Amino acid sequence: LVERALTRILTPGTVLEEDQLDPRSGSWLAALNWDKKGLHAAWVDLSAGIFEIASEERPEDLVSCLDALSPTEIVVPAAIFQQDLPEEVEWLLKRSIVTQLDREETESRDPAGELCQTLGVLSLEGFGIDAEHPAVPSAATLIRYSSEMLRRTPGNLNRLSWRRLDETVRVDSATLRNLEIFEVTKGGRSGSLIDCFDQCVTAAGSRLLERWFANPVRDVPELHRRQSLISIFHDRTIQASDLRAALRQTRDLSRILSRLQNRIRNPREIGGIRDTLRQLPEILSGLQILEDEKATDLANRIGEFAELKEILEKTMAEELPGKLNDGGVIRDGYDEVLDRVRSLARNARTWVAEREQEEREKTGIKNLRIKYNGSFGYFIEVTKANVHLVPDEYVRKQTMTNAERYYTEDLKEKEKEILNAEDKAIAREEEIFQGVVDRVLTDADGLRRTAEALAETDLLIAWADLSRMRGYVRPEIDDSLEIDIENGRHPVIEESLRSSPEGIAGADSFVPNSCALSSESHQIAVLTGPNMAGKSTYIRQVALIAFLAHTGCWVPADRCRIGWIDRIFSRVGASDELARGHSTFMVEMNETANILNNSSERSLIILDEIGRGTSTYDGLSIAWAVIENLHGQGPRGPRTLFATHYHELTRLEDSLPRLRNFSVSVKEWNDQIVFMRQVIPGAADRSYGIQVARLAGIPVPVIDRAKEILEALEGGSTATNAPQQS
Amino acid sequence: LVERALTRILTPGTVLEEDQLDPRSGSWLAALNWDKKGLHAAWVDLSAGIFEIASEERPEDLVSCLDALSPTEIVVPAAIFQQDLPEEVEWLLKRSIVTQLDREETESRDPAGELCQTLGVLSLEGFGIDAEHPAVPSAATLIRYSSEMLRRTPGNLNRLSWRRLDETVRVDSATLRNLEIFEVTKGGRSGSLIDCFDQCVTAAGSRLLERWFANPVRDVPELHRRQSLISIFHDRTIQASDLRAALRQTRDLSRILSRLQNRIRNPREIGGIRDTLRQLPEILSGLQILEDEKATDLANRIGEFAELKEILEKTMAEELPGKLNDGGVIRDGYDEVLDRVRSLARNARTWVAEREQEEREKTGIKNLRIKYNGSFGYFIEVTKANVHLVPDEYVRKQTMTNAERYYTEDLKEKEKEILNAEDKAIAREEEIFQGVVDRVLTDADGLRRTAEALAETDLLIAWADLSRMRGYVRPEIDDSLEIDIENGRHPVIEESLRSSPEGIAGADSFVPNSCALSSESHQIAVLTGPNMAGKSTYIRQVALIAFLAHTGCWVPADRCRIGWIDRIFSRVGASDELARGHSTFMVEMNETANILNNSSERSLIILDEIGRGTSTYDGLSIAWAVIENLHGQGPRGPRTLFATHYHELTRLEDSLPRLRNFSVSVKEWNDQIVFMRQVIPGAADRSYGIQVARLAGIPVPVIDRAKEILEALEGGSTATNAPQQS
Repeated sequence: LVERALTRILTPGTVLEEDQLDPRSGSWLAALNWDKKGLHAAWVDLSAGIFEIASEERPEDLVSCLDALSPTEIVVPAAIFQQDLPEEVEWLLKRSIVTQLDREETESRDPAGELCQTLGVLSLEGFGIDAEHPAVPSAATLIRYSSEMLRRTPGNLNRLSWRRLDETVRVDSATLRNLEIFEVTKGGRSGSLIDCFDQCVTAAGSRLLERWFANPVRDVPELHRRQSLISIFHDRTIQASDLRAALRQTRDLSRILSRLQNRIRNPREIGGIRDTLRQLPEILSGLQILEDEKATDLANRIGEFAELKEILEKTMAEELPGKLNDGGVIRDGYDEVLDRVRSLARNARTWVAEREQEEREKTGIKNLRIKYNGSFGYFIEVTKANVHLVPDEYVRKQTMTNAERYYTEDLKEKEKEILNAEDKAIAREEEIFQGVVDRVLTDADGLRRTAEALAETDLLIAWADLSRMRGYVRPEIDDSLEIDIENGRHPVIEESLRSSPEGIAGADSFVPNSCALSSESHQIAVLTGPNMAGKSTYIRQVALIAFLAHTGCWVPADRCRIGWIDRIFSRVGASDELARGHSTFMVEMNETANILNNSSERSLIILDEIGRGTSTYDGLSIAWAVIENLHGQGPRGPRTLFATHYHELTRLEDSLPRLRNFSVSVKEWNDQIVFMRQVIPGAADRSYGIQVARLAGIPVPVIDRAKEILEALEGGSTATNAPQQS
Repeated sequence: LVERALTRILTPGTVLEEDQLDPRSGSWLAALNWDKKGLHAAWVDLSAGIFEIASEERPEDLVSCLDALSPTEIVVPAAIFQQDLPEEVEWLLKRSIVTQLDREETESRDPAGELCQTLGVLSLEGFGIDAEHPAVPSAATLIRYSSEMLRRTPGNLNRLSWRRLDETVRVDSATLRNLEIFEVTKGGRSGSLIDCFDQCVTAAGSRLLERWFANPVRDVPELHRRQSLISIFHDRTIQASDLRAALRQTRDLSRILSRLQNRIRNPREIGGIRDTLRQLPEILSGLQILEDEKATDLANRIGEFAELKEILEKTMAEELPGKLNDGGVIRDGYDEVLDRVRSLARNARTWVAEREQEEREKTGIKNLRIKYNGSFGYFIEVTKANVHLVPDEYVRKQTMTNAERYYTEDLKEKEKEILNAEDKAIAREEEIFQGVVDRVLTDADGLRRTAEALAETDLLIAWADLSRMRGYVRPEIDDSLEIDIENGRHPVIEESLRSSPEGIAGADSFVPNSCALSSESHQIAVLTGPNMAGKSTYIRQVALIAFLAHTGCWVPADRCRIGWIDRIFSRVGASDELARGHSTFMVEMNETANILNNSSERSLIILDEIGRGTSTYDGLSIAWAVIENLHGQGPRGPRTLFATHYHELTRLEDSLPRLRNFSVSVKEWNDQIVFMRQVIPGAADRSYGIQVARLAGIPVPVIDRAKEILEALEGGSTATNAPQQS
C-alpha cells in the first residue's frame, strides 16, 4: 500500500473535474447568512472563476436570485438554525445540498483582509465594495471553505462583484416557476423557456445564457448593445455562420483555466487551449470584417496570444495523451535532451526488433518470438516443440503450457536501457510541460476575458440565428411606461406547434395576439372569455416577451416596444405551492399580498383568476378591491393583465379610467363552440362554461336547466332572489 | 464454464422469491383484453395462489378494480394497440409494466380446456363460470405466460373466481385517489387510509387487508360476520391478545406453499411450516374458548395437521440452514444411513483435530497448525523459523511469505474419508428432504385454507384492537337508504392529531361531527362556510366511514347506521388529473358527468366546489342544475354531500324538499376568525374570505374596500349593477 497525501476533498460545490460538471450549466457554491440587517450571500463558480456577493433586507428578493442560480451546494453557519429563519430561506435550504459550518469556520476577525489576499488586491474598494459590506463575511467563508476542500487557496479568483438587485429585473421564485423559465412545472429542463433559447455551439455560451436568464437587467444601454450585436449577426448571415463554425472548434477555455489554476493539469487540456488559440485569428477577423463599432468592441476583448500560441505549437505534440505518464506530450525536435533520450529508447527498441530475426536464423527456430510484458520485461518465447533447439546462453524464466520463456544477458541489458531512457524522457517531458503550463497561466487574465467574449459571441449569434429562423423582432426598450406588442406569440408553444402541427387540437399554427398597456393610460387589461380559449397562454406570453426583452434577446412578435420593467409579478395557479401546506386560497392571497405590497409603477403584473378559492361575493369583492388598488387614485400604476371569470369586473371600465376590457374570441356554431384564440377589445359576452360542460358529457337535461337558470340570473334576478325550478 | 439449463425467467409479475416480494402486499400479474363486448381481465397472485377473472362492458369499472390491485405486471395481446383504446385503459397501461404478447401466445382454440387442465378440474362450471365467459381467454393467456416463465405449469392454482363487480361497492380510480385510500396524493403509503388500518402481525393479514380494501362488498351477511368477529375480539381482550401472540409466531404459509409447489424449495421454509403448525393447537383452542358460532366457523377452517407436524418434528433439525447443500437439514437419529455417514465424518474430523496436538509433540514445533481450506483441503502449516524441524514424511505443498504448508499421506487419506462421508450425508439428506416436501404438498389444500383463516383472524383481531384503542363503533349495515353517523371523525387526521397534538393550528383534538342523509327525506346536504374551516375534511370523513363500513371494519363514530351503498363517487380537487392534459374545468365536468350518468339511489356522492373553473354565473348555473338533477323529481335520490362557495345555492332549500343546508361554524372575535370545526344546520351567513385575505397580508385599505363592495353586493345590487368606487 502506498500512502497518499490528501490532495482534494470533493464536495458538490467544489468539483472542477470535467466529467463531474454539466458543461452547459454553471456550478455555483453559495454561502448564506441571516441577521438583523437581512440576508447576505456570496456565490462562486470555481470552475469559471466568477465570484459575487449580494445583501438584501427582504430575504425573498435574494432567495429568488439564488433560486435562479440553483447552487449545487450552500454553506451556512450551523448557528443560523438556532433562530427562526424566514420561510423563503428555509424553503431554499430544503431544496439544496447544505453544508453546515462551525463557528471557527465562519467567523473571522478580518474577512475583508482574507478576501483581499485571495483576490490579490490591497482593498475591495476597487470593486466598489466596502470592507464593512454585510456580505463580505459570507464571501470570506466561501474562500475559507473552498481552500479547505481544494487544499489550497483557489487560484482563479481575482474579481469580486456586488450584484445589486435593484439593477436587475426582479422575478420572484413563484414567477420563475409559473412562467417555466428554467424548468417546467412537472420537472425537467425540456420544454422550458431556456431550453427553447439555447442553441449555442459552445458550453460557455450556454452557461452565459443561463446567467443572463437568471439576471435580466434594467440597464437600457447594455440591452441595446446586445440587441445591436444580434442585429448585425442577424443581417450578416454568412459572416455569422463562419464565426459560428470557428467557435465550434474552440474548447471550454474558462473551465480549463480554472483547473490549471487549481493544479489539475492534463496535457489534453493544454491542447484545448492551443486549439482555441488557433481559431482566434479567424474569429477576430470575422468580427472586424463586420465594420461595426460594437462588434469591434467585442473583438477588442479577444486577445491574439500570438507568442503563447507559438510556444504551444512548438512544444506540444499534435495528438496529446490524457495523462503525462503516457509520454508523447512534447513535440520531437523541441528539446535536445528529450530528443536524445527518446532516440536512445527508440534505438534500443529497434535493436530488440532486429534481434528476433537474428535469433531465428541463429537457432533455426522459425516461430521464435521476442515479446514484452509489464511484469517480465523482454523475453524470448519458444514453443515446446522447439525447446531442444534452444542455445545454452538462454536462461529459462517461465514455463507456459505450450512454450518456454527465456532471457539472455544482452536482452536484459537493452531492456534496462529502454526503461531507463523512457523514464528519463517522461521526467523531461514533465519538466517542459510544467513550464508550458506556467507560461499559459501568465496569460490567464487575458484568456479569461477572451473566453467571456467568445461565449458572448456564441450566444448572440445563436440568438440572431433563431430570431431569423423564427421571425423574431428587436424590441425597443426605453424609459417609457408602456408595453406595446404587435402580434406577439408564446415562444415555447409556437415552437412546439411548429415541430408537431397537431399539438393542440385543431390548431395548425400559433395565433398571434397584440397587447398594449401603459401605466399612464391603458394600465390594466381585464381579460374575460371561456375556459380553454387561451387566456392563460396570452397573459403568460406577454410576461415572457417582457422577460426576454430584458435579457437582450429579440422577441416573438411583429413589433415590440417596452418601457423598462423593475419587477415581473405573477399569480397563476398554485398547485406546486400546496406542498407548503397552505390552503389554495391562502396561497393565492399570499401571492396577491406580495404583489400589492411590492409593485411599483414600473412593474408588470399578470394575475390569473384571483379570488377563486372563496365564496362568489367574497372573491369578487377581493378581486374588485385588488384591481382598484392596482389602479390607484394617482395618474399611474403598474402595467397589469388580469384574467378572470368574474364578468362583473368588466363593469369597472366605467369607473376606472385606465382600465380596458378584452376578451378571447369564440365562435358559436350550432350551439357548439369554436375557439378562435384571438384577443379582442371588449368584455366577453358569455363564458361558455355550459358548452364546455356539455362537451364533458353532462346530461342534456342538466345542461338545458343550467341554461334556464343562467338566463334567469342574467335577466336580473338578484343573487338573493334565485330562479325557481319550473 | 458449466452449461446450465434455463430453469426460470423472472418477470415482475411471476417472481416467487421471498426477497423479491413485498411481504405486506399482493403481487398481481394481470392479463387484459378489450373487444366489442367490453374489457376482460384475469389476474393471479402466483405467490398466494389466488386467481380471478372479471369482465365489464364499461371499461372504467374494471380499470378502477385493477387500479386498486395495482398489478406489478400486465400482459396484453400486442394487437390491442392497433385499435383506439378507451382512455381509462390507456391510462392504466401507462402506469404499469406492460408485456405485449404475440398472437400465438394469446390465442387458443380451447382456452377453457387449458384452464381446466391447470386447475385440475373437468369443467369451469364448478366455479360458476361458463366456458364462453369473455374473460376465459385472458385467464388462459395468464396460465400460458406463467408456465412459460416458470418453465412449468404453476402448481399452486386450483380455483378460479369470477369477481362480479356488482357485488362490490364500486369506487372509481379518481375517488380512490381523492380519498387517499391506498396512497396519499403526494405519493407513498404513509398517511393513507390503509396505512392507518394496518396493524396486522402477519404479512398475510396485511395482504388480506389490502384485498378487502380493494374490494369493499355489498354482501350484508358477510359484513355482519366480519363485524361480529371484531366484536368478539373487541370484548375478549385477553383471549385476543393470546391469539395474537400465537399468530406472531406463525410464518407466511401461503407464500411458502406457492414456492414449494413451484419447485423453489429450501429447508428453512419447511421449518416455517413446522413453526406455524406448532402454533395451531393454541390458535384453535384460543378460538374455541370464545364459544361463539362465528369464531368456531373460523376455527373449523383451520386444520390441526397432527400427522404432518409429527413428521416434521421427527425429520427436520431444529436450526435449519438456508440451503440444502449446507447440510444439517435432517435431525440426528431419524435415519440410520444418514447417522452412519455423519458419524464417519465426525470421527475423521476428531482424528484430524487430535492429530495437531500429536504432531506438535512429535516434531517439537509448538505453533504447528493443521488447517483446512476449500482448494487445498487439509494441510499442516509450519512457520519459516521452524522449517528445519519438519520431519521427512511431510510433503511440501505451498510456500507462503512466513510459512510452509505440507501434507502427509495419512492426512490426505482422512481428508478423502471426510469429504466422501459429507457428500454421502448431503445426498441422503436431500433424498429425505424431498420426501418431506412431497408429504407437505399432500396437505397443500388444507394448509392454504388454514393460511386464509389465520390471515382473517389476524386482520380481525388487529381491527378489534384498534377499534378499542381508538373508540370506534360497530356500524349497523342494513337495506335502508340512509346514512346516520353520530359524532363521526376522520380516521387518518384523528390519528395524526393524536400523535402530534399540534398538527393543525390551534386544534388539540379532532372535532367530531354528525351526518344524517336519507335517499327519501334528507337526501342532499349543502355545506357552506369559510375556507380552511374543514368542509373538505368533513365530506371526506363521511365517505371514508361509509367505505370502511363496507370492508367489515368498525368506524370512528359514536354511532353509525348505513344502508348499503352501491358506489361511492367523489369530485374533489383535480390537481393530479391535470397531467392528462385537460383544463381544470374540463376534468371537473368530466367527473361530474360520470356521477350524473352512473349514480343510483343507492350511491353516495361527495362534491367539493362544483363549477369553480368557469365564470360565476355559468358555474353557479351548472352547480344549481347538477343539484336539481341529483335531487330529481321522484321520491328518492343518491345520498349527496355538496360543499360549495356559492351561497346562492342555499336558496334551493326552499324549492327542493329533500335538500338541507349545513355550515361549518366560525366565531368572529375582534374581526378575527376562530374556526370551531362544527357542522351545524343552516346556511353559513358569511364566508370570511376577506378575513382570510387579511391574514394573508393583503393591505388594509384593500381589505376595507373589499368589505364595502361586499356589503353593496349583499345589499341587493344586482350583478349587472356594480357598486361605484367611493
